[in-house]
Amino acid sequence: MRIGVIGPGTPDAGSGDEQLAERVGELLARRGATLVCGGLGGVMAAACRGAQRAGGTTVGLLPGLDTDGANPYLTVALPTGLGELRNGLVVNASEAVICVGGSWGTLSEMALALRTGTPCVGLACWAVDTLGSEQERTVHRAESPEDAVDAALTAASAAR
Amino acid sequence: MRIGVIGPGTPDAGSGDEQLAERVGELLARRGATLVCGGLGGVMAAACRGAQRAGGTTVGLLPGLDTDGANPYLTVALPTGLGELRNGLVVNASEAVICVGGSWGTLSEMALALRTGTPCVGLACWAVDTLGSEQERTVHRAESPEDAVDAALTAASAAR
Amino acid sequence: MRIGVIGPGTPDAGSGDEQLAERVGELLARRGATLVCGGLGGVMAAACRGAQRAGGTTVGLLPGLDTDGANPYLTVALPTGLGELRNGLVVNASEAVICVGGSWGTLSEMALALRTGTPCVGLACWAVDTLGSEQERTVHRAESPEDAVDAALTAASAAR
Amino acid sequence: MRIGVIGPGTPDAGSGDEQLAERVGELLARRGATLVCGGLGGVMAAACRGAQRAGGTTVGLLPGLDTDGANPYLTVALPTGLGELRNGLVVNASEAVICVGGSWGTLSEMALALRTGTPCVGLACWAVDTLGSEQERTVHRAESPEDAVDAALTAASAAR
Repeated sequence: MRIGVIGPGTPDAGSGDEQLAERVGELLARRGATLVCGGLGGVMAAACRGAQRAGGTTVGLLPGLDTDGANPYLTVALPTGLGELRNGLVVNASEAVICVGGSWGTLSEMALALRTGTPCVGLACWAVDTLGSEQERTVHRAESPEDAVDAALTAASAAR
Repeated sequence: MRIGVIGPGTPDAGSGDEQLAERVGELLARRGATLVCGGLGGVMAAACRGAQRAGGTTVGLLPGLDTDGANPYLTVALPTGLGELRNGLVVNASEAVICVGGSWGTLSEMALALRTGTPCVGLACWAVDTLGSEQERTVHRAESPEDAVDAALTAASAAR
Repeated sequence: MRIGVIGPGTPDAGSGDEQLAERVGELLARRGATLVCGGLGGVMAAACRGAQRAGGTTVGLLPGLDTDGANPYLTVALPTGLGELRNGLVVNASEAVICVGGSWGTLSEMALALRTGTPCVGLACWAVDTLGSEQERTVHRAESPEDAVDAALTAASAAR
Repeated sequence: MRIGVIGPGTPDAGSGDEQLAERVGELLARRGATLVCGGLGGVMAAACRGAQRAGGTTVGLLPGLDTDGANPYLTVALPTGLGELRNGLVVNASEAVICVGGSWGTLSEMALALRTGTPCVGLACWAVDTLGSEQERTVHRAESPEDAVDAALTAASAAR
């Protein structure tokens, strides 16, 4: 199972996003899922750190043509040369995505996931709150990392 | 000047989105701007129809490998084979974007525009209302097609 | 009809590639075809110059996020942000491609065209000579700009 | 170190390409390199099989939006939705590429590698023979899987 983890590369100090992401990564690894992300810092690095510590596999789809800025917790660091368009690759490559915290990139990927029918889970993610009640069937608002990982794996299994 | 027009391919009946889009297209053409869009129906077709009637140039970046579904008002219909990732190309190719109405694809492109610093104007676009006050500098909430086109061309000129 | 013109951005001095490309562009415009290319200099610029002089439409799919390096003969200059991967877009967007002269980028696009079944015509193109006799059905070795344009339009019509 | 392995998905019977590719994969894994490929059958599957048996990591960048056709020897199978354009991603993601056997896709990727300056090694690859003497500095014509892997790792190290 490939689960995307999406979130800001430079989360607000004190937001707690990185602690949540690290726990999400750890839980994904324990459940045997491969973590796919944009490969940089902040939420991406924290999730990969958690996953790697638990023995999981992590994939970073990097914006540039080299590994500059890649976090050190990637099993596989893949330069794409696509710039911001590589966000869409993270969605295409994932069977479900978990958004932690919020940023424009996050919102972009979340909206793309909704568009393409990829199951989408939000944790501490303001964007979820803005999407309106008619989207409740596709966006799962998670209360905790445990809830987020459960929801993502359940939705990805159902979509297979 | 290349201005992207973004909006749903199948807008809600009675939304008035297509009338607004057609007027936006017409005004862009009169101001000499090239209209860039996803090339399909709904808001995209309406904007192209308005632009073409006013003698403007319209470009459609299509998702598939052929021109299936392309609207008949395109000066240039370009199959990309990129699927939904071609939304990002519309943003990359445009100097400013005008969003008419709302949909997940629209929100995705709007969020990507904000991420990449492309000026972004919203007209009858619920997504603008959800983006929060701190984004007021980047998202212009337009009151009319005239206002939207003015704002987009002004912002694109300033960014040159 | 959309015809791609592919060739080196900096052809060898004295190769005559630019004269051939300019004539190809002119003929494509006279036949009502839209010229699609990578938008930069050399063969691309020469072809666009010929097409524009004959009143044709020219599209440049540029590698960067702005129009730096774009030739001045483009009806539509579209930044893609895809770098060298935008070569593949030129092939996807075209109903047939004409290769003038030779370079690695040219060979890459020609090989991609062969792979995807896009009709491919070579003019003064060493690459054609290297492709082997079993490819004669897909690569047309043109003797002149007239022959190249004829062959491309005929093949594109047949593939519709 | 990320090394791309490129070759036909359906090699000619009796070509021996798959035996060569399997040995290349095995040697890459033993040297600690991550194998990147297009993720499908033929040469790609054989290389991954060899790498996986030796405990290596294999990445498949698949053309579609799901894992249909993915070979069973992938550590990470990543749908891209880019179709044939994902060939360019294999090149962008790799520090050097080894081409085994020959096909249009192979030639396309080899030409793209030459264009972008990615070191390129050919093994039993007709395309190398066609590239001309002036390219000898960039294309290494390997005599054996051992030679190919040595050359690719040496070139990738030098390029870091």
